[in-house]
Amino acid sequence: MKRLGSQTVKFATPPYILTTASIVGKKEGEGPLAQYFDQILDDEYWGEKSFEKAETKILRETINLALSKSNKTAGDMHYIFAGDLLNQCISSSSAIKDSNIPFFGLFGACSTMTESMSLGAMLVDGGFADNLICATSSHFCSAERQFRLPLEQGGQRPPSAQWTVTGSGAAILSNSGSGPRITHVTTGKIVEMGIKDANNMGAAMAPAAVDTISAHFSDTGRNADYYDLIITGDLGEVGMEIASEMLEELGTSITDKYNDCGVMIFDSDKQDTHSGGSGCGCCASVFSGYIYRELLEKRLNRVLLLATGALMSPTSIQQGDAIGGIAHAIAIENLE
Amino acid sequence: MKRLGSQTVKFATPPYILTTASIVGKKEGEGPLAQYFDQILDDEYWGEKSFEKAETKILRETINLALSKSNKTAGDMHYIFAGDLLNQCISSSSAIKDSNIPFFGLFGACSTMTESMSLGAMLVDGGFADNLICATSSHFCSAERQFRLPLEQGGQRPPSAQWTVTGSGAAILSNSGSGPRITHVTTGKIVEMGIKDANNMGAAMAPAAVDTISAHFSDTGRNADYYDLIITGDLGEVGMEIASEMLEELGTSITDKYNDCGVMIFDSDKQDTHSGGSGCGCCASVFSGYIYRELLEKRLNRVLLLATGALMSPTSIQQGDAIGGIAHAIAIENLE
Repeated sequence: MKRLGSQTVKFATPPYILTTASIVGKKEGEGPLAQYFDQILDDEYWGEKSFEKAETKILRETINLALSKSNKTAGDMHYIFAGDLLNQCISSSSAIKDSNIPFFGLFGACSTMTESMSLGAMLVDGGFADNLICATSSHFCSAERQFRLPLEQGGQRPPSAQWTVTGSGAAILSNSGSGPRITHVTTGKIVEMGIKDANNMGAAMAPAAVDTISAHFSDTGRNADYYDLIITGDLGEVGMEIASEMLEELGTSITDKYNDCGVMIFDSDKQDTHSGGSGCGCCASVFSGYIYRELLEKRLNRVLLLATGALMSPTSIQQGDAIGGIAHAIAIENLE
Repeated sequence: MKRLGSQTVKFATPPYILTTASIVGKKEGEGPLAQYFDQILDDEYWGEKSFEKAETKILRETINLALSKSNKTAGDMHYIFAGDLLNQCISSSSAIKDSNIPFFGLFGACSTMTESMSLGAMLVDGGFADNLICATSSHFCSAERQFRLPLEQGGQRPPSAQWTVTGSGAAILSNSGSGPRITHVTTGKIVEMGIKDANNMGAAMAPAAVDTISAHFSDTGRNADYYDLIITGDLGEVGMEIASEMLEELGTSITDKYNDCGVMIFDSDKQDTHSGGSGCGCCASVFSGYIYRELLEKRLNRVLLLATGALMSPTSIQQGDAIGGIAHAIAIENLE
């Protein structure tokens, strides 16, 4: 491995993404990417007694599905990295507690999927693990009642609001095998530009995405021409437009290569999702479903994936604090 | 580096702990370890308007102090690992947002200090970072009102309850320099034995500590004789007794080498702290204050440090879920 610039490492032996799995909710299964997910649920509960327990089940079953698709067992996994949006990341620890796999809990808000894959790739390339799992989840109903208002209240959502994805994604990284490989990791810094509106996460996260994309290009000497797709996690329509404009102003046009998982997962006009999808499960399910399959089938060969997180809590919003953003980028490439 | 058994890695070039820093609250500064902390605060606010903002300031200033003690700047740090107990780990992201250091957010509940040092040591030994910071915090008042009851209510605490430490610790790890070194990391699995009482965290975490100590001994071939001190993060008196008994039953006596940061930080009889200290800041400040100084002065030369986390949230407790425990062990040794 080699350090490039101030935020990027390039792997000597790029870890393989052996397999991925994704399970999503009913609404996500009615969106444009429906065909790419492994499983679509019929309702928000999946037979559980609470939204939180449903989220736990979605994450646990996604991890189990990734293991079974890879023909590996929990015993083959040296570590599991996971985190989620709920207070004290309770869906992750509940989902993983019976797995018997050494566990590193993460909190990166919606940046968790690429945070986990960044650390996972370093541990595999560094020789600390042969195989490991990276996973995360979110659930519309558990997130709404925790972060915003009870669903029963039926409050009106502003146009900049996003719709938390009910879903989960998991990826198994390995030092051997086949599949797309993680070649570079560019780790994000927190960027805070004064946004205080919890219903405008896209605006809060866009500057962080711009900062990390700029750092990645600067550190690696690459530009948008190198990639088939540069995709952010959940900026939504509002945040995606801001990120595009900010990059244009910096003289870095990525427009014809750029998309956002939150924009892709829903048809916002038909599905009334306003600015688009959000939540840890947004980037996780779109990567594990759509992007990974496109990489496997060589329709995409070079992807820069950035999950984007809004670092806030209901308490910090109530105390008038601005929302910091963070974005972690991983370059995923078909090398063979 | 070399993998040992199923949970341990041994470093080829054990990372140095270049320096540490600790800042604690007034009550901690009246306890038996007062002389070891860098700074003791006069009150719970430190001039801030809320407990949460005070916790943020404690963590930020501890990180700044560690940097200044090491004669390094934020620009020398390739990464910062941090997490805390508050919802969405808001004290960590607020404390770090102006640091301009690439940030990996963690959630390991009170296991965060050794979780951060485990991952940090792997990134340094793996060549991904020359220097990085590991830090965490907790605050009695922000934790009480979030996890239990408003302080104003003055509710009675059961004898098994612990007292969340107001404090923070930070450690700078480096691939060069001097100081005690992290030689091994044994990563914990979640262990859940049915404890559902949020006022009995020690009992919930003790089985996880036992599991990780047993794994460390099994993976490395070491036993308690090898170490000068085996110290858990915040089992408190109740949890420490359970852990000792469980280890005796397994035929692994560590009693004469064993202590617990939560037991050491307060004089429970005089300070009315019941079972002892807890919180991310407990292990962090006792390690960064007391243990690190004892290592520097060679009164301790071989320490096995296990921060211990109780993986629960108010929601999970209200929904009747049992509390999972986790413990991450790091072996810290004077090699010269």
